[in-house]
Amino acid sequence: MAPPAALPVARTTPKGAKSLRQGNPWLYRTELAAPPDVKGAGAVVLVVDSQGNPIGQALYARRSPLALRLLTRKGPAEEPVNDAFFRRRLEAALARRSMLSHRDGLRLVHGEADLLPGLFVDRYGSGLTLQTLSEGMDARKESLAKVLVELTGATHVVCRDDASGRDFEGLPRESRFLHGQGDARFTYHEGENRFTVDLLGDMKTGAFLDQVDNHLRAGELARGESLDLFSYHGGFALALSRNSTSVVAVEQDEKAAARAQENARVNGRDNVRVEHANAFDVLRRFDTEGRRFDTIVLDPPGLAKRREGLATALRAYHELNLRAFRCLKPNGLLVTCSCSGKLDRAGFEEMVLAAAMDAKRPVQILERRGAGLDHPVLGGLLETEYLKALYVRAL
Amino acid sequence: MAPPAALPVARTTPKGAKSLRQGNPWLYRTELAAPPDVKGAGAVVLVVDSQGNPIGQALYARRSPLALRLLTRKGPAEEPVNDAFFRRRLEAALARRSMLSHRDGLRLVHGEADLLPGLFVDRYGSGLTLQTLSEGMDARKESLAKVLVELTGATHVVCRDDASGRDFEGLPRESRFLHGQGDARFTYHEGENRFTVDLLGDMKTGAFLDQVDNHLRAGELARGESLDLFSYHGGFALALSRNSTSVVAVEQDEKAAARAQENARVNGRDNVRVEHANAFDVLRRFDTEGRRFDTIVLDPPGLAKRREGLATALRAYHELNLRAFRCLKPNGLLVTCSCSGKLDRAGFEEMVLAAAMDAKRPVQILERRGAGLDHPVLGGLLETEYLKALYVRAL
Repeated sequence: MAPPAALPVARTTPKGAKSLRQGNPWLYRTELAAPPDVKGAGAVVLVVDSQGNPIGQALYARRSPLALRLLTRKGPAEEPVNDAFFRRRLEAALARRSMLSHRDGLRLVHGEADLLPGLFVDRYGSGLTLQTLSEGMDARKESLAKVLVELTGATHVVCRDDASGRDFEGLPRESRFLHGQGDARFTYHEGENRFTVDLLGDMKTGAFLDQVDNHLRAGELARGESLDLFSYHGGFALALSRNSTSVVAVEQDEKAAARAQENARVNGRDNVRVEHANAFDVLRRFDTEGRRFDTIVLDPPGLAKRREGLATALRAYHELNLRAFRCLKPNGLLVTCSCSGKLDRAGFEEMVLAAAMDAKRPVQILERRGAGLDHPVLGGLLETEYLKALYVRAL
Repeated sequence: MAPPAALPVARTTPKGAKSLRQGNPWLYRTELAAPPDVKGAGAVVLVVDSQGNPIGQALYARRSPLALRLLTRKGPAEEPVNDAFFRRRLEAALARRSMLSHRDGLRLVHGEADLLPGLFVDRYGSGLTLQTLSEGMDARKESLAKVLVELTGATHVVCRDDASGRDFEGLPRESRFLHGQGDARFTYHEGENRFTVDLLGDMKTGAFLDQVDNHLRAGELARGESLDLFSYHGGFALALSRNSTSVVAVEQDEKAAARAQENARVNGRDNVRVEHANAFDVLRRFDTEGRRFDTIVLDPPGLAKRREGLATALRAYHELNLRAFRCLKPNGLLVTCSCSGKLDRAGFEEMVLAAAMDAKRPVQILERRGAGLDHPVLGGLLETEYLKALYVRAL
């Protein structure tokens, strides 16, 4: 067999080499001592330290500040990065989700944590969405889609490369079919509830699959009169409805609110009432009016998008949580979430406990949760963790 | 009605007052500016700040470094601390566990987090255990047991006041029946598995109820060949056996190992083999021999009992976790636990990730868990949190 063609070489700084060797798969351009001689998109390069000792093979990005994403610590002779390599990685990601085989809505590939840096694949019934957040995966998305169709039997693959993360990578934004055509609406289930999503038109890749386990857990623990703020399509609201006498769901986006009400109707959840309104306003009104609930879910959009905005975001989070505590009946349950990567777990928890103290409510911390099993965090890259959910009971 | 008798007054330092007002229910003797004039055991005192402004009512301990445990922020006229007060608190603790009504083995009262400082009550079928870790609760245990029998219909209540925490409080150690007599053996269930416990003779209060949810969760995620280290009565091992082809359980205590094997037999878990051996030795042997598993559970006893011993304990934890990672097949699951209160969550996680790196295994963090819902943590008293369980997959 012919030896593999020589790879372009990327030489790192000593600091960069140390970081890669400590398990971080990312290398910023500032830690690149000598960039590789690369022309086209999505090249695989050989990464070496300042002495020329090999570290592994990586995807190179020509424009992103994040220059290298390590694919393997093995060399090109031992493990060539070719189509078979990516197929094996995809197969492994699918195999690791075998314990979720009862679910038809889940993330199949979670980027770095599945050793497929910058590739995110979600399944909604027979439809898949594919997102690429690295030049290397972007350049391969047509062939990755083909393999995914083979491995999963999906009828459609939609490319949802329209997220703001693409700008950081210097990649254009686009949404289109990679496989199949026509209607991009698919259905999937969260527990016993059925949801319809438009893979081309809805937010994120259609739904917030990272929250499915929290929807179901909140549904198990909910009781009495429930309030779901920032409802989107009703994932929490419908789950809460099973054990609740009534659910008020609040969603500001008109289209999303209509979809949530429609999802409730389709699933026969007659005790769910969706209010098309601003959650801050509604919570303030309930607080003032003395309206009280047994269960409240707070799942706001990321309020801290940038580090500079953190103080402002914390004030908004604090107001929401304070008012939620005040609107809870004795022994009521609050499920409070934050998906802001800039707000870490400790800071989030401190904010929630301060809000409880300001509301003069002692609280029991019942559970600390994050995204579901299908959205794991890579050990060496904790900064990719973003979702926090705290389950607290106010006494 | 006669006004309540005036309570003895405990005056705090400004620092102590601040801490109590920030939600911490504990006050150490060093923060007591003027101790109350108290003769007998278990007195309730009125707590005031240095200006004499009331803070609330507390249990006073004459000998413990932990002098005050706040019971209520209300005054004696508004909320007298009498038998009816304790009954209400017990009823509230039971009501908060209504979502666990399908379980016959659980903690009914979890001390501070249930606003009953120093009182811990566990249920095992129709038997209850009661532990008191404050002079105030110790003095009331006979009457608390009576109320608990009324509220739960329990046939027996065993006092398990034989833990080392009693020494700190200056309280004698004892184990005896508070209600009922005769045989102290009871049965309870963890999921579908039935366990027998001796409420007078077994460790802790009979079982490690704080780990029940982790037993069941590990059982859901386990696959293939499983290894359970530090098995005690087989809580993890029996749960693992359902989805595993085989389970090797290792327990050093001869009596506990025999009980684990008997529990496996009674529940028809033929694929569980209990080794009466030292877990460190067995793991070292498996590592050397190249024996590999799909699922490993590490649930050692608290290796860091005192802060001084933390470095030594961390070395032991690291060795266990390193070898466990080495003994995991590709994509194998490690459920690794620590019940050492002196090792915080961040330090524990850092140790586990360092062990993974030393084993040269990239890992996915799937879940971070703690004790179950029946063992909540009080918001203002995070130092009472001790149990950490990390679910990681080694790629």
